[in-house]
Amino acid sequence: MSTSSSKKSTSANNLKNDRLLRALLREPVDRTPIWVMRQAGRYLPEYRATRSQAGSFLDLCHNPELACEVTMQPLERFPLDAAILFSDILTVPDAMGLGLYFTEGEGPRFKHPVRSEQDIKRLAVPDPEQDLGYVMDAVRLIRRELGGRVPLIGFSGSPWTLATYMVEGGSTKVFANTKGLLFDRPDLMHHLLNTLADAVTAYLTAQVAAGAQSLMIFDTWGGMLSARDYQEFSLQYMEKIISNLPREADGRRVPVVVFTKGGGLWLEAIANCGCDAVGLDWTVDIGDARQRIGDRVALQGNMDPCVLYASPERIRTEVAYILERYGKGNGHVFNLGHGIHPGINPEHTAALVEAVHELSIPYHQNN
Amino acid sequence: MSTSSSKKSTSANNLKNDRLLRALLREPVDRTPIWVMRQAGRYLPEYRATRSQAGSFLDLCHNPELACEVTMQPLERFPLDAAILFSDILTVPDAMGLGLYFTEGEGPRFKHPVRSEQDIKRLAVPDPEQDLGYVMDAVRLIRRELGGRVPLIGFSGSPWTLATYMVEGGSTKVFANTKGLLFDRPDLMHHLLNTLADAVTAYLTAQVAAGAQSLMIFDTWGGMLSARDYQEFSLQYMEKIISNLPREADGRRVPVVVFTKGGGLWLEAIANCGCDAVGLDWTVDIGDARQRIGDRVALQGNMDPCVLYASPERIRTEVAYILERYGKGNGHVFNLGHGIHPGINPEHTAALVEAVHELSIPYHQNN
Repeated sequence: MSTSSSKKSTSANNLKNDRLLRALLREPVDRTPIWVMRQAGRYLPEYRATRSQAGSFLDLCHNPELACEVTMQPLERFPLDAAILFSDILTVPDAMGLGLYFTEGEGPRFKHPVRSEQDIKRLAVPDPEQDLGYVMDAVRLIRRELGGRVPLIGFSGSPWTLATYMVEGGSTKVFANTKGLLFDRPDLMHHLLNTLADAVTAYLTAQVAAGAQSLMIFDTWGGMLSARDYQEFSLQYMEKIISNLPREADGRRVPVVVFTKGGGLWLEAIANCGCDAVGLDWTVDIGDARQRIGDRVALQGNMDPCVLYASPERIRTEVAYILERYGKGNGHVFNLGHGIHPGINPEHTAALVEAVHELSIPYHQNN
Repeated sequence: MSTSSSKKSTSANNLKNDRLLRALLREPVDRTPIWVMRQAGRYLPEYRATRSQAGSFLDLCHNPELACEVTMQPLERFPLDAAILFSDILTVPDAMGLGLYFTEGEGPRFKHPVRSEQDIKRLAVPDPEQDLGYVMDAVRLIRRELGGRVPLIGFSGSPWTLATYMVEGGSTKVFANTKGLLFDRPDLMHHLLNTLADAVTAYLTAQVAAGAQSLMIFDTWGGMLSARDYQEFSLQYMEKIISNLPREADGRRVPVVVFTKGGGLWLEAIANCGCDAVGLDWTVDIGDARQRIGDRVALQGNMDPCVLYASPERIRTEVAYILERYGKGNGHVFNLGHGIHPGINPEHTAALVEAVHELSIPYHQNN
């Protein structure tokens, strides 16, 4: 029974290119796989066209057909080794009733930030299929559209990162309200983070049920915390989420990547949180990171996104440097150390992908 | 002769409170000294009053009497252990002819950013007394005004940090132009950084001649570089500067502090650059930092500036935590891990200073 049902589904076992999943589990591959954070995005003219057709950025997220379309766009251009769901990390708080909207130039905002005890205790965990059905529909559509070409990555923001937007009411450089709450009312902050951990667990579980084959937790603002507070207010909750996630789908492990931007000091702790792989920003030397935690987890990263402003030749040199720093063997997924910038020339992205695939072959021979 | 001349000057040897200088050199003190980055600033109503009298922020920097006045303001309120020159890190590129101005809400801008080979090669090292005389006048005035109460800290931006503003033409989150230059024309970037290293050396040397008793190099954007690029494009030039600075004034060593925000991964390298002390942002655990580099340098820091949004009781708890993490013995200067935010209640700053002085006594007994 299980054999025939796995044959009927678009099983991960039927993936034409499973380099990403293998590398995230530190299994042998022929070349280092690569995908690019924000690979579907403003640097692509076809993305800008679809987006202007959709209306706002949020309209694009809410429309499964168009979200699927932009998810597929970078795969048509570049031989990337993974697709990543096109969505926004703030869909979860939006589904909690905070009223997400975007203002040109100022980024995301919430109509109803949460700051008081009442605000925080009123929050309920959304039902993913009901309240975030448009995301699950997008996941199902993308899986169908992919037809097993490459695996699909699902994702969420970390509880701490979501909390910063929810408490501030939008982006911030200062985190005055969030940190004020953290320091003065840690009980309330923990209440909020617990609710968010439950919400993210349900959200990611539903993404796997809908077809996501790997998961990534974006902890964009974990690096704004002190060493002690990072453990207590960010890492602890990612660990809780991971311990409750389904770790298999279609008879294959669903690897989880944790990416804390600015988390280079805490790699050992991150590697112990239950994840399969750790995302690295570009401030960490990937060779050092491998020495520190490469015996436990795979590493994803970590080229400075600004290298893509330079010439294709320079990009190639940098790829060679990072591959050499990582060295021979398994467990490396190439990526940028942060999302690709909107102003990047797509031909430079092509040069990046080509360089990774070409130059990584020797690192996987006799392995 | 030297004895009598040192008696006539307002000598550092006559300092009533020399805790800062002693702690920076890891000599015994009775309490942990404290000063606060941006201690003269917008969170103080008296600062806002002087500033509105001066006109613009830049007018305030250009006016030695008013710069002296705002430098002294926090010392009137709080028993701080140091004064720091009120000025801006961008006075040096301004003196190089870039045309510094400030726009409300958008921060510093330059009328003439430098991007081309011609722009960069045309830059000349300013003469501090001639082109930045208003800064040297402020230093002399402040020293006179201080009358030996506490030492005066002089400062500069690091060459890399200055370069980012000069190439971008202002603040940036992305560093597209600066990094584009770095990756595609490292020769030009090195030319620019060499010129800036010479300019900063001359500038800090003149500050010492005018009366600065300790120096700090602010490397605000060093943490935006990769591990390799940090060494090559930021640290190398700070090392060059320090090796050429006068290290004594008034018969006393002039300690140099290097502060790279986001530099926690590279503390060992920073501690080897010739500085006496390393500034820490709040993401590093100061106990870990002491274990890593405390045998070579003093440490300055590192409370999360956002703790000051919390209650005085919570501030006190955090001070106790950081003092305990540093532990007994010499070599700690208390500070925030970054500049104090404009919205902070001055009474919270008072609570911070009081807590450091009170709670640190046991850490210096039988020492």
